Amino acid sequence: MADKYEQVIELAKRRGFLWNSFELYGGTAGFYDYGPLGAMLKRRVENIWRDIFVINEGYYEIEAPTIGIEDIFIASGHVGGFSDPLTECQKCNEAFRADHLVKDIMDNPDTLSADELTDVINKNSVKCPECGGKLGKVYEFNLMFKTSIGPGGKRAGYLRPETAQGMFVDFPRLVKFYRDRLPFGATQIGKAYRNEISPRQGVIRLREFTQAEAEIFIDPRDKTHPGFREIGDIILNLYSREGQDAGESTRMQIKEAVEKGIIAHEFLGYCLARTYQFLVRVGVSPDKLRFRQHMSDEMAHYAADCWDAEIESERFGWVEVVGIADRTDYDLKAHAKQSETELTVYIPYDKPKKVERFIVKPNMGILGPKFKGKAGKIASALKALKPQELAGDVIRLEIDGEPITIEKDTVTYESVSEEVHGETIIPHVIEPSFGIDRITYSLLEHSYYEEEAKEEGEDEETRIVLRLPPEVAPVQAAVLPLLTREELIKPANEIVKNLRKAGILVSFDDSGTIGRRYRRNDEIGTPYSITVDYDTLKDGTVTIRDRDTMKQVRAAMSGIAENIYDMIYRGKSFEDAGKKV
Amino acid sequence: MADKYEQVIELAKRRGFLWNSFELYGGTAGFYDYGPLGAMLKRRVENIWRDIFVINEGYYEIEAPTIGIEDIFIASGHVGGFSDPLTECQKCNEAFRADHLVKDIMDNPDTLSADELTDVINKNSVKCPECGGKLGKVYEFNLMFKTSIGPGGKRAGYLRPETAQGMFVDFPRLVKFYRDRLPFGATQIGKAYRNEISPRQGVIRLREFTQAEAEIFIDPRDKTHPGFREIGDIILNLYSREGQDAGESTRMQIKEAVEKGIIAHEFLGYCLARTYQFLVRVGVSPDKLRFRQHMSDEMAHYAADCWDAEIESERFGWVEVVGIADRTDYDLKAHAKQSETELTVYIPYDKPKKVERFIVKPNMGILGPKFKGKAGKIASALKALKPQELAGDVIRLEIDGEPITIEKDTVTYESVSEEVHGETIIPHVIEPSFGIDRITYSLLEHSYYEEEAKEEGEDEETRIVLRLPPEVAPVQAAVLPLLTREELIKPANEIVKNLRKAGILVSFDDSGTIGRRYRRNDEIGTPYSITVDYDTLKDGTVTIRDRDTMKQVRAAMSGIAENIYDMIYRGKSFEDAGKKV
Repeated sequence: MADKYEQVIELAKRRGFLWNSFELYGGTAGFYDYGPLGAMLKRRVENIWRDIFVINEGYYEIEAPTIGIEDIFIASGHVGGFSDPLTECQKCNEAFRADHLVKDIMDNPDTLSADELTDVINKNSVKCPECGGKLGKVYEFNLMFKTSIGPGGKRAGYLRPETAQGMFVDFPRLVKFYRDRLPFGATQIGKAYRNEISPRQGVIRLREFTQAEAEIFIDPRDKTHPGFREIGDIILNLYSREGQDAGESTRMQIKEAVEKGIIAHEFLGYCLARTYQFLVRVGVSPDKLRFRQHMSDEMAHYAADCWDAEIESERFGWVEVVGIADRTDYDLKAHAKQSETELTVYIPYDKPKKVERFIVKPNMGILGPKFKGKAGKIASALKALKPQELAGDVIRLEIDGEPITIEKDTVTYESVSEEVHGETIIPHVIEPSFGIDRITYSLLEHSYYEEEAKEEGEDEETRIVLRLPPEVAPVQAAVLPLLTREELIKPANEIVKNLRKAGILVSFDDSGTIGRRYRRNDEIGTPYSITVDYDTLKDGTVTIRDRDTMKQVRAAMSGIAENIYDMIYRGKSFEDAGKKV
Repeated sequence: MADKYEQVIELAKRRGFLWNSFELYGGTAGFYDYGPLGAMLKRRVENIWRDIFVINEGYYEIEAPTIGIEDIFIASGHVGGFSDPLTECQKCNEAFRADHLVKDIMDNPDTLSADELTDVINKNSVKCPECGGKLGKVYEFNLMFKTSIGPGGKRAGYLRPETAQGMFVDFPRLVKFYRDRLPFGATQIGKAYRNEISPRQGVIRLREFTQAEAEIFIDPRDKTHPGFREIGDIILNLYSREGQDAGESTRMQIKEAVEKGIIAHEFLGYCLARTYQFLVRVGVSPDKLRFRQHMSDEMAHYAADCWDAEIESERFGWVEVVGIADRTDYDLKAHAKQSETELTVYIPYDKPKKVERFIVKPNMGILGPKFKGKAGKIASALKALKPQELAGDVIRLEIDGEPITIEKDTVTYESVSEEVHGETIIPHVIEPSFGIDRITYSLLEHSYYEEEAKEEGEDEETRIVLRLPPEVAPVQAAVLPLLTREELIKPANEIVKNLRKAGILVSFDDSGTIGRRYRRNDEIGTPYSITVDYDTLKDGTVTIRDRDTMKQVRAAMSGIAENIYDMIYRGKSFEDAGKKV
């Protein structure tokens, strides 16, 4: 029997949600097209993300290019370290991820170097899974797609492996935009690329995919969040480090998790909450959702804490769909170094602080003639001295490896009291990073149902229904004239027009029995079907059918657009949409 | 004095609309970032396009990858012919477009071959504009960014030079989705790439840009449009072929232009109308907009007619922002050939047609023994014969260059009457193709004003105001507590929250005088500023200020979100928003 993935993908291909790219030319692994319904579904998921993170959280979206220059990815570490270990079959030339080939032989093969993997393959006589041929030496294959900007191949360009770098590179502009006030954030929703060696997991592992990322710059000394109280009571399914050691996850209020130090701080807890709300709003089942903390050895060395939102899929198990990390000041420091530019924020104090400052003043009139070209370096070294280093009879320095002795009368020094009005800090970065394709696939899987159903006046039959939240359903309303007759088609077309004017995506369908048309719409998740019949001509009403309950109400044709709109976007209940039939 | 482009770009950089990409690393020509306000502005432009072409016209959006495989671009002609003539300076190695270097020497240099351009450069002693060095031989430089899919460099990938090919490649899926009914269309909004040799026109010529394209598949025998009557009266500024010969454009109703054969047919006229409506709705000045027809020698050989929407810019003159073409069956035929797949639609007749068909039946019992291996080919040749070719005493054929004579009794033939239920056709393609970046820039330029203005209680001063339509303005409302006092900030925050819940992008600003805050918002085009003052605490009202007229009304705080929403999206007038102050 087909598993759920096959069922969902069969429906997705047949009805226009998604299919393999380049089918006309035989396809290429790792690329999928979103069809008419899939692209709209994905767009709606992105718009809900935007509503939460851009409109409501106030982290403005930016749009940097998908092509980046080499400096960026040297700073980010992608040029040096964004690779997978590759081995090629010497016989059939097929390429494989070496760590995948040995995963049944040992634990954590992804921690091995290329040479170590080569050893494991040789010692265990691992052969090509395709043809049984001998496998070649393992080497690191960089996963960025590389290209060249302008003629002559002089300037390397890379397709970005994540959208995040765009926000880091724009940091100086963003600081100005937000007028130096922390915390602030910027987001991007866009394509990212990963030139996978040999992707074999359908829509779960793509070479071109869509990310939605926020980079939130916060004061490292204050990781609280003003909105924390609002979300503290939310209960999450947490799979913490300790939980993973014990093999079980725990349902816990966010505020408790922060209090107990399971989640590092409020700001991270707040991001987990908004992530949870987003995923549930777009249609992920809450009972198939957990937050897994990175183990210490799995987390980047600079990260303070990191949680993945994982969604359960029948075929793939727990799949990572979101990563939420406190990346500290790692990214800004890396770009500051590479670009030789300060990436900091100046934070003024509420009131100036008094500080004592020790100042050493070298006498250049003596140092200059005596030390000539070295005088400058010596002066700098003197200025950096601390009081106790000036305590002896003479001052001993080392300049370029050479010991130098200076008479004490060559310097004067004093302690001054100064008013300091603020300080310059490197913000920490909180990064929630969403994989939109995996989320879109997951909500198809979670909303997919096959069930026995009986439409009024018809026999019971199996119906496929996508129980998508009305807000994300690609087609939001179907308009169905009961019969293909001019007098019914005319008012139906008028309804179509009014719905479209209100921005509602509507399909018109007049072919086949009404039952069959309901089925067609159930299958693609259309939440409301509007039927025009002969009563419409008499009293100006239509029936609205609810996809999930298959119940019907009778409502006025005038105002139908607002009626449907309010059910989709404003929480109006179906019962309130008209008179029960 | 700064020209308008400089003024607009200065504002755009300073306030966060757009800036050069990779500034931190010195930048690279042909790439721009959209900042917080620019990205939102662009998103709103895209959403209006979506509203018109996807929701209202019913041309569903799809999303194909930005990376394409080689077959696609062999079929489309981009591998073979998507190039610009390049010459490099032998001294400083700078690269130039050869046709640009000789444009003052001759007319239409873009029609010359690389060799001809080399000749022109040599004969006229054209030198490097940068260093005066000698220029090298001109060659064609392909403008696609090239990369490699998977390891080993075995499979070429290209960044798509247009989104269009995604719709052509998906044609078989789309036909099924639309259940074989013409006309149907699909759209894409997404990135496209062009590896320009040396882009020097800022945001007007980008190496990475956003297109919105529709490919509409129509019956070649019927190029009318059911909605034509609705738009026939619209008057466009047409710069037709004849007009260009005479050097003047004409304002004309679309229906007249189609009747007179200036616009080739209704369907194209309809697309021009919707394009016009889109551009004006997002904020392009109608008086700086014209539709220019391609001259015969400028149009692709297969195209039936082609019009560009052009927008007038102070610095760049008339800039092409949209192309609307009848591409006939060129694209589908090209992909059918390359993929060896039929790309057709079967159109059933309303009622079956009777046709006479002539059938030739070779007698294989005679042909087989006599001609052996050649018998099959001979039989095929016989079946293809027409009645008059069977009129002589014997039948003369030529098989693989060899003349063969066949006795007449080797074949029988007859005429039969058959019922035909439909036919298979190759649809024609109507393609409206929009350059979103140029449009976004244009509407900034067209909405930019500097004017003397006097706020109540302040001195007259120069204000910059972006008169963006409220529907596209990135920040839709500003909430301003009159003073930085807790009792005013609290209700202000409540308003912010309510507006955000309604999906309205709002900024909160409490620093500086109220006049300065109005200016800051005028400059970024915020249509409505809401001020909370001490009357708010007394009677629960706030002032709403209109950006363009600077007039104010007083309106209830409760219901403020709906009030603002209705002004932005539902055409409610400012006068109706409250009581005149």
